[in-house]
Amino acid sequence: MSLILSRRDMDFLLFEWLDVEGLLTRPRYAEHDRETLNAVLDLAQQLAEDLFAPHNKMADANEPRMLADGAVAMPAATKTALDALSASGLLAASQSTDVGGMQLPFVVDKAAFAWLQAASAGISGYALLTMAAANLLIEHGSAEQIERYAKPLLQGRFFGTMCLSEPQAGSSLGDIRTRAERDGQGAFRLFGSKMWISGGEHSLSESIVHLVLARIDGAPAGVKGLSLFIVPRDLPTAEGGSERNDVTLAGLNHKMGQRGTVNTLLNFGEGQSRPGGESGAVAYLVGREGAGLSAMFTMMNEARISVGASAAALGYTGYLHSLDYARQRPQGRPAGAKDATSPQVPIIRHADVKRMLLAQKAYAEGALALNFYCARLVDDLRTGPEAESAAVSGLLDLLTPIAKSWPSQFCLEANALAIQVLGGYGYTRDFNVEQFYRDNRLNPIHEGAHGIQAIDLLGRKVVIGQGAAFEEFQRRVARSCKQARALGGEESEHASAVETLLAAVVETTAVLHAADDPELTLANASQYLEAFGHLTIGWIWLEQLIAAHGKVGDFYDGKRAAARYFRLWELPRTGPMLALLSSLDRTTLDLEPAWL
Amino acid sequence: MSLILSRRDMDFLLFEWLDVEGLLTRPRYAEHDRETLNAVLDLAQQLAEDLFAPHNKMADANEPRMLADGAVAMPAATKTALDALSASGLLAASQSTDVGGMQLPFVVDKAAFAWLQAASAGISGYALLTMAAANLLIEHGSAEQIERYAKPLLQGRFFGTMCLSEPQAGSSLGDIRTRAERDGQGAFRLFGSKMWISGGEHSLSESIVHLVLARIDGAPAGVKGLSLFIVPRDLPTAEGGSERNDVTLAGLNHKMGQRGTVNTLLNFGEGQSRPGGESGAVAYLVGREGAGLSAMFTMMNEARISVGASAAALGYTGYLHSLDYARQRPQGRPAGAKDATSPQVPIIRHADVKRMLLAQKAYAEGALALNFYCARLVDDLRTGPEAESAAVSGLLDLLTPIAKSWPSQFCLEANALAIQVLGGYGYTRDFNVEQFYRDNRLNPIHEGAHGIQAIDLLGRKVVIGQGAAFEEFQRRVARSCKQARALGGEESEHASAVETLLAAVVETTAVLHAADDPELTLANASQYLEAFGHLTIGWIWLEQLIAAHGKVGDFYDGKRAAARYFRLWELPRTGPMLALLSSLDRTTLDLEPAWL
Repeated sequence: MSLILSRRDMDFLLFEWLDVEGLLTRPRYAEHDRETLNAVLDLAQQLAEDLFAPHNKMADANEPRMLADGAVAMPAATKTALDALSASGLLAASQSTDVGGMQLPFVVDKAAFAWLQAASAGISGYALLTMAAANLLIEHGSAEQIERYAKPLLQGRFFGTMCLSEPQAGSSLGDIRTRAERDGQGAFRLFGSKMWISGGEHSLSESIVHLVLARIDGAPAGVKGLSLFIVPRDLPTAEGGSERNDVTLAGLNHKMGQRGTVNTLLNFGEGQSRPGGESGAVAYLVGREGAGLSAMFTMMNEARISVGASAAALGYTGYLHSLDYARQRPQGRPAGAKDATSPQVPIIRHADVKRMLLAQKAYAEGALALNFYCARLVDDLRTGPEAESAAVSGLLDLLTPIAKSWPSQFCLEANALAIQVLGGYGYTRDFNVEQFYRDNRLNPIHEGAHGIQAIDLLGRKVVIGQGAAFEEFQRRVARSCKQARALGGEESEHASAVETLLAAVVETTAVLHAADDPELTLANASQYLEAFGHLTIGWIWLEQLIAAHGKVGDFYDGKRAAARYFRLWELPRTGPMLALLSSLDRTTLDLEPAWL
Repeated sequence: MSLILSRRDMDFLLFEWLDVEGLLTRPRYAEHDRETLNAVLDLAQQLAEDLFAPHNKMADANEPRMLADGAVAMPAATKTALDALSASGLLAASQSTDVGGMQLPFVVDKAAFAWLQAASAGISGYALLTMAAANLLIEHGSAEQIERYAKPLLQGRFFGTMCLSEPQAGSSLGDIRTRAERDGQGAFRLFGSKMWISGGEHSLSESIVHLVLARIDGAPAGVKGLSLFIVPRDLPTAEGGSERNDVTLAGLNHKMGQRGTVNTLLNFGEGQSRPGGESGAVAYLVGREGAGLSAMFTMMNEARISVGASAAALGYTGYLHSLDYARQRPQGRPAGAKDATSPQVPIIRHADVKRMLLAQKAYAEGALALNFYCARLVDDLRTGPEAESAAVSGLLDLLTPIAKSWPSQFCLEANALAIQVLGGYGYTRDFNVEQFYRDNRLNPIHEGAHGIQAIDLLGRKVVIGQGAAFEEFQRRVARSCKQARALGGEESEHASAVETLLAAVVETTAVLHAADDPELTLANASQYLEAFGHLTIGWIWLEQLIAAHGKVGDFYDGKRAAARYFRLWELPRTGPMLALLSSLDRTTLDLEPAWL
């Protein structure tokens, strides 16, 4: 059995629950059958097992170093793994054939990629950004930009980055200062510094495509003044060679985890290179002037869901590692056993160890399932009935902060439990789980911190379009509950718990927005995000229960046990959160900084 | 203001709450006055600021290495800091003058030591074990053993270790296999391997005193067959020199955090040295044969409370570091602010950042206060009325698993919040908070893992002596509630919340033990530990509220805000836990390993 992910569970999610075979009747996917999907999943698993997982620890222990000449050194195994991934064609798995893709269902693409994320969060990070950059260009770029940049990205010849943050503007994008000057020939020159840029410099690909938010001279303050640019690291010369663009590596960030991905500080337009004899980084506008943030959101939304997937994958692999350990490690005897000479039992026999394993299972499988559900929505957006597209799109927007934040919070908790199952061994670098925990700790921070996601959900996503997306969510949850009730038994009990919680969340939402004071409404948004997340995962477990209904065997009993755990141990935790929210508690809002 | 700990808060806890000045009327402490206590706290703070905190990051980045000759290399600053600590006399701060101590109140000793724990968990680890080893010998050793080992330990000439775990016996001490052979001259020779031994080899002190659990040949199986031994690393020779005992460093553990403390695997009696020409590690019995575990518990209980103190100290310093950052870092604008050109505000103005800071404050100050409360109980045991000693001792035993586990869980959570406040910066090694988080992750594991503490509390501490200790706890909580009710206002509201929770915990305890099936009673003990812990900290906050009553100023408003946070945000979380416990939920107990 693989310790990276469970193919058995993946098959359940894709084929027994999400009816991915049903998708294959749609014209876009007509070339595929179950066998080709299986082959793609096999291929991803093979890459993960052969080239990603074996080097994950090494990439952590040997983090990238900046060399005197401004280049970045890192272990050769990182390039080997990524070269193989590029060669596999998986970077373009779900793209149209006209850009060189395989036109696989998006959900299968994401399932395949999850193998790489679980095998090495660090090494797979480059691919994640590259795929997201290509998607952005395909959606917002010109035909020429797609040809020149998106296609090489999908082939892995170029890798992408996402340049938003600046030292003075992390979560506050409206404060971005990077300037774009018109060069008089239809392009631009950029000047400024970008912070926290993953994949900002390396020798892993022929070139790097930076997607950069900047403000064209004269543009208004705030986010409305931001435009989006392509800044290639390398520029073609008239002679057919290439020269360096004016992008300088100013330094590397040394992180607690995710050390397999280089994270950089980049300076644009410092004048160390002078392409065409002029200063400034040569840049090409993507889409309209002033529409940079909304274009960038294409990439950010994808990155957010991918961050959630990475968190879920780390939680999942930590679960499998600790499960493997718990089956093998003898220690102690059952409570009440008196005979000190009797053999010790494997720790998986102890109730508290079972709790820690079952909680991990409920978190990790729940998080991955939500992620697949969101990916399946993308397939519906691309190939489903036009009439449903607005509803599907709204629902995906609503679920994005949850798909990002819930796994980041609870699959990190899963990794903490994995360490605990291994005890002292789990705390050492001889085992893998401590790295998963360090790697996962990034996920509640980047691509919009937890608190930002909370405000996005409560302040925006549940109310836009008169709450249309929230209503679509309620309709779907109610539909699942109705279906489950008809099945009776535990399915019905689970449905009741979810229905009750849904009603409470709806009511709390109304109370919060009735306050009609943005500061008060949003003051405790983090609790709202957590409760809404639990409701969502509780529903996702209900969906899995329905899919497992009447099926016999350990695998399905495991699904039922995890759903039961989630219903009995997790859903009740939302009670105090919703009560606090409904009370419009002012404890944190009214806190004077001087009291701290 | 120091970022290590708050002296202002420490003064509040010691002098405004715990009436440490009142203690000074007792004969043992008669030589002291408030000024000498202040001088000791000043001294500890100075050591922490000058020699511990500045090298904490360096000790982490340069973890101990095993050299070819079996010695251990580590940064010189570690020895410098510990030499200064030894020279200060603080290792013996609360000991009797007849063993070279200062006879300070134990609570002041622990408060002073907390500065070093907060400044460097790694470097202070050696001192913690050394003090605990000396205490064990003073309590259970012979006069000669006290003279030969305890006194040099208290002077810092020798450092101590605690050798319990073996590769096949971590949490299950009854499975210890290390053998003790009688040498025919009243001493013993030891043969076996010990795992996870902090401070097992180094050049920080003249010698090392290992306290080792082993089984004398012919002793029964299980914990009843264990005896306790002193195994000095170095033995005096007839010529007045010294020779190595037969203790070999077999390897070092490479940990996620706490890298400032060397952690070793030791082999006893491997024959690499042959003291006196014989094989086996020379060992001296401490106390009675077969009473090793109960003697070791003197050290373990102290170590458990010290682990809790270390966790609290790490939570506290993380809080202060993130508070400092939040006051200085401008980012974003208040919810609803529309003007993109207005200056950004410090992040401490955002409600969600205030939440993360206030939660840290409530966790860290609550945990440290509980720790001081326990230390104050030790003072009562040593110097209080004889008639109360059984009650005090029982209460201390009851609180030990909580004082160990609660800070290990919630001050780790505090460190996670500290990282979150700093965002991406918090995830880098340029700042300190990621190290606090890594260091703190050990605390729920060592000295009795979380699940072990849970079973200790529910299976033993609340029931022994027909629940006498639990009743003493209830009496004290009820007394505080009565006092607070008389004050009215928020004090009274807090008292009501604590009273209600106490009643629920009492009822749940009865339900659990009425099950009369040890496996079922203990199946969900981790939830019991957490709920009981919240009750305890809720009570400790009530005590602080009472001590702050009627006092004016930011400091006291801060105490009231943290208590309010604990009452409104934290105490309600116990509701679902207790409901689950009372339902005698069998989800984890009945889980079949094959379902995972």
